[in-house]
Amino acid sequence: MPQHRYLLTEDRIPARWYNIAADLPTPMPPPLAPDGGPLQPDMMTPIFPMELILQEVSQERFIPIPDPVREMYALWRPTPLYRALNWERALGTDCRIFYKYEGVSPAGSHKPNTSVPQAYYNAQAGVKRLSTETGAGQWGSSLAMACQLYGLECKVYMVRVSYDAKPYRRLMMETWGGQCVASPSQETNAGRAILAEHPDSPGSLGIAISEAVEDAATREDTNYALGSVLNHVLLHQTVVGQEAVEQLRMAGAEPDVVIGCVGGGSNFAGISFPFLAEKFAGKDIQVIAAEPAACPSLTRGHYGYDFGDTAGMTPLLPMHTLGHSFVPPAIHSGGLRYHGMAPLVSHLVHTGLVEARAYSQVECFTEAVGFARAEGIIPAPEPSHAIRAVVEEVQRAKEEGKAKTILFNLCGHGNFDMAAYESHLTGQMVDLELPQDELDRAAAELSSMPAVG
Amino acid sequence: MPQHRYLLTEDRIPARWYNIAADLPTPMPPPLAPDGGPLQPDMMTPIFPMELILQEVSQERFIPIPDPVREMYALWRPTPLYRALNWERALGTDCRIFYKYEGVSPAGSHKPNTSVPQAYYNAQAGVKRLSTETGAGQWGSSLAMACQLYGLECKVYMVRVSYDAKPYRRLMMETWGGQCVASPSQETNAGRAILAEHPDSPGSLGIAISEAVEDAATREDTNYALGSVLNHVLLHQTVVGQEAVEQLRMAGAEPDVVIGCVGGGSNFAGISFPFLAEKFAGKDIQVIAAEPAACPSLTRGHYGYDFGDTAGMTPLLPMHTLGHSFVPPAIHSGGLRYHGMAPLVSHLVHTGLVEARAYSQVECFTEAVGFARAEGIIPAPEPSHAIRAVVEEVQRAKEEGKAKTILFNLCGHGNFDMAAYESHLTGQMVDLELPQDELDRAAAELSSMPAVG
Repeated sequence: MPQHRYLLTEDRIPARWYNIAADLPTPMPPPLAPDGGPLQPDMMTPIFPMELILQEVSQERFIPIPDPVREMYALWRPTPLYRALNWERALGTDCRIFYKYEGVSPAGSHKPNTSVPQAYYNAQAGVKRLSTETGAGQWGSSLAMACQLYGLECKVYMVRVSYDAKPYRRLMMETWGGQCVASPSQETNAGRAILAEHPDSPGSLGIAISEAVEDAATREDTNYALGSVLNHVLLHQTVVGQEAVEQLRMAGAEPDVVIGCVGGGSNFAGISFPFLAEKFAGKDIQVIAAEPAACPSLTRGHYGYDFGDTAGMTPLLPMHTLGHSFVPPAIHSGGLRYHGMAPLVSHLVHTGLVEARAYSQVECFTEAVGFARAEGIIPAPEPSHAIRAVVEEVQRAKEEGKAKTILFNLCGHGNFDMAAYESHLTGQMVDLELPQDELDRAAAELSSMPAVG
Repeated sequence: MPQHRYLLTEDRIPARWYNIAADLPTPMPPPLAPDGGPLQPDMMTPIFPMELILQEVSQERFIPIPDPVREMYALWRPTPLYRALNWERALGTDCRIFYKYEGVSPAGSHKPNTSVPQAYYNAQAGVKRLSTETGAGQWGSSLAMACQLYGLECKVYMVRVSYDAKPYRRLMMETWGGQCVASPSQETNAGRAILAEHPDSPGSLGIAISEAVEDAATREDTNYALGSVLNHVLLHQTVVGQEAVEQLRMAGAEPDVVIGCVGGGSNFAGISFPFLAEKFAGKDIQVIAAEPAACPSLTRGHYGYDFGDTAGMTPLLPMHTLGHSFVPPAIHSGGLRYHGMAPLVSHLVHTGLVEARAYSQVECFTEAVGFARAEGIIPAPEPSHAIRAVVEEVQRAKEEGKAKTILFNLCGHGNFDMAAYESHLTGQMVDLELPQDELDRAAAELSSMPAVG
C-alpha cells in the first residue's frame, strides 16, 4: 500500500529550535532604534520578557525548548508529513509532492508553535496580560489559546476587514477566553488617529501592531506578543522544518524544492530554515517564498530600514517593505496583508539564497480547489499561494523533463475561510490591483529612512 | 515528560471491520418490509450496491477492508488517542480521561470512515451518483468528499435549520464538488408534501431521508447513502474503537467507562463496539450513550418497529423511536436531531448492555468550553454530550472514592459551530423543551406499528 502520511511519535518533538542567524553566510544588518540610532536590548524590556529578547539577538545555533513547552506542543505536535499521492495523480506529474500539515493544531495553523512559548516565557516572567494584533485571526486565536493554557489574559486587535469577514475566528478567541476588538479601534491613540483621518479604514497589520504595542507600552501588567516578523518568532517555527527533515528521511526523499507562502515570514521560515541549513552545507535545494501580488513586499518592495508598524513605534527593521503607511487591498489572505517582511527572510532573498514569487488570488484559489478535491483538506487562503507555486514548479519540471521532489508547508486549513471559497466558486472573486498612487506615496516615505549596509 | 497523544503508524489502520452482530448475546430482531412483511435483501437493490446489502445482513465477526479503502483512510487514519492531562488537572480528578479524536479527518468528523467505503463500493458497482441527507452537514460534507475522491456526483438534502445556520458546511460540500439543497425541498414529492402543509418547516433528518431515498429510487444512475443508523454504517465506524483498543494498550490502560454521544448511533458504535466485544468476553466495562434531552429517543422513546424516515419509504426498523413524524426542536447539535436510533444500539440498550443518559444543551456547552480551554480543541456540539457525561462520571468516581479510567469519542471539532458557542458565551442559549403535544401525536402513530419480539 503506498504511504500517504509520515508520522513521528511524541518523543520526536524537537528538543531545540534552530537559529539560522548562527549559519548565515553574510551577517544580517542590525535593527535600529526608531530615531535611527543603535538599538539597545533594554529598549525592548517594557514589552518583551528577557528570555525572548535574548533569543531575538542570539547567535547560538540551537536553543533548547523548555520541557513545559514541549509538553504543550504535544497537544498537536509532531504534525504529519503527507505525500500528496492523490494530487500528484490529478496533476499528472512524475514529481513527488510532500506537504507538512500544520492545520492539525487546535487553532488550525502553525501559529501556536510560537504563541505557546511566548505565553510560557511571559508567564514565567510574572506578566499577567498579553496584547497583540491579528490579521485573518490565526495568530490572535493562537495567542488566546496559549494565554488560556498559561493563565494569562489576552487582548487582540483584529484588522477590521478580517474582523468583519471572519466572525468565527473572533468567537474562537472568545471561546478560549480572549478579548478581541476591531482595529483601528477607539481604544488607543494610534487607532483614534487613523479613524479620525480614515473613518472607513479597513485596517492593516501595521495599524493593529501600533495599537497592540501602545497597549503593552502603556500598561504595567501587559507585554506585547508578535505573531511573525521577529527573529524569535521565526526561531520557534523551526520545529516545523526540523520534523519535516526527519519525516522526509523516513520517506527516503530529499527535496529539490522547498516552498512556503510569506506574509510576515514565519511559516516560510519554519519549513525552510532547517533545509537552508542543509543548503549552506552544500546541498542543492531551491527555496521559494510565495507572496500575494496584491501585497508584494519581496518582489516589488524596497529593501531598507522601515518601521514594523504604521504609527512608527517599533524599532527600524532591515527588510523588504512597501512603506509602513501602505494599506494593502482587502484580499482574502488576511494573514499575508503586511507591508514589510521578516528581516531574516528579507536578508535571505536579498542575498540570493531564497527566490520570491508573487501570485494573484484567483489563480491561487483555483489550485487550492484542485488540491482540496484530491487530498480532502481545504487549504487556508494563505497557503494557496504555496500551492500555486508548487503547480508552477510541476509545470517547469515537466518542461525540463525532470521528476523533482517538492516540499511545501500547508500552514493551515480553510475551515474559517469558506466565504472566500464561496466567492471563488460563484465566480465573484477578482484580482485586486495594487493602488499605484498609494504605493508611490508610501514608498516616498522610505527615502527618509536609513539605507541598509 | 507525560504523554498527551498515542499515535499509530499507517500500517496499523485496521485491516477489517468488526461486526458486533456475530457476538450479540441475544439476536437482534430483523427489519421488516414497509408493509410489515418479511424484508428481502433484493428489496434494497434499487438504492444500495450488493456489497453493502451483504454487509447489512452479515453474521461474520470480521469483514475485510478493501485495500483501496484503507489507502483512502490513510488521508487521516489512524487518528490520535489523547490523554486529557490538562482537562484532568482542570477538573481536579484522579480519574484518567482518554479521548479518541476523529476531528482530524478533512471533513472534521468521524463520518468519512463510512462515506469512503460507501462511495468505493458504489463506484465499483458502476453507480454514477449518490444522494443523501444531512443534519448539521458533517455527513453531507463527508459524502461529498468521498464522491469526489471516487469520481461520483453527490446530491445532499440538508435539514433546513442547519442549512440556514451553517452555510459554511454547504460551501464545504460545494468545494468538494457536491450539490446541496435545503430540505424540505421542492425537488421531491416528499419535500413538496411537507412544504404544502408546513411552509416554514425547519426540516428534520427523517424528512431529508425521505427526499434522498425518493431521489435514488426514481433515478436509474443514482444510489442512496446513509450516514448512520444502518448496520453496515456502524460496522464501518468500528475502525475507531479498534484503534482505541490498541492505543489504550500502548498507554497501559483499560477503560472502566466508554462514552459516546448518540443521534443515529454511528460514532457511539464506532468507539464502543470493539470494547463491547471485550465486555461480552467478561471484562467489566460500563458503556454509556449520551443523547440530547430535546430528542431523547433512548431515554424517553418507545422500543418497537418504526420507519427510518418521515414519509414511510424505508423498511421498518426495530428501534427506540419518538415516532417517525416527530420533528425535534432546533438544538445546535444538528447531528443528533433524529427521531429514531440505530437498531443495534437500541438492542444493546434494550438488553441492558448499554446505559443511556440525556443532557440538555446548556450544560453540555458549559463543559465543552471547559474542555476547550484546557485541551485546546473546540468540540462540535454533538460530542459535548459525551463530554457532559464524562464530567458526571468524574463526579461519581469522586463520590465513590474511585479513580476510574474513562474513554470517550471526540467525534468532531466545532470549527463550523462557532455561532452556537457565541450563543452560549453571550448567555443567549436556552434549553429547548420537548413539545409534549407533538411528542404525543408522533407516539400515537406507533400504536399501529408491529411490536418487537
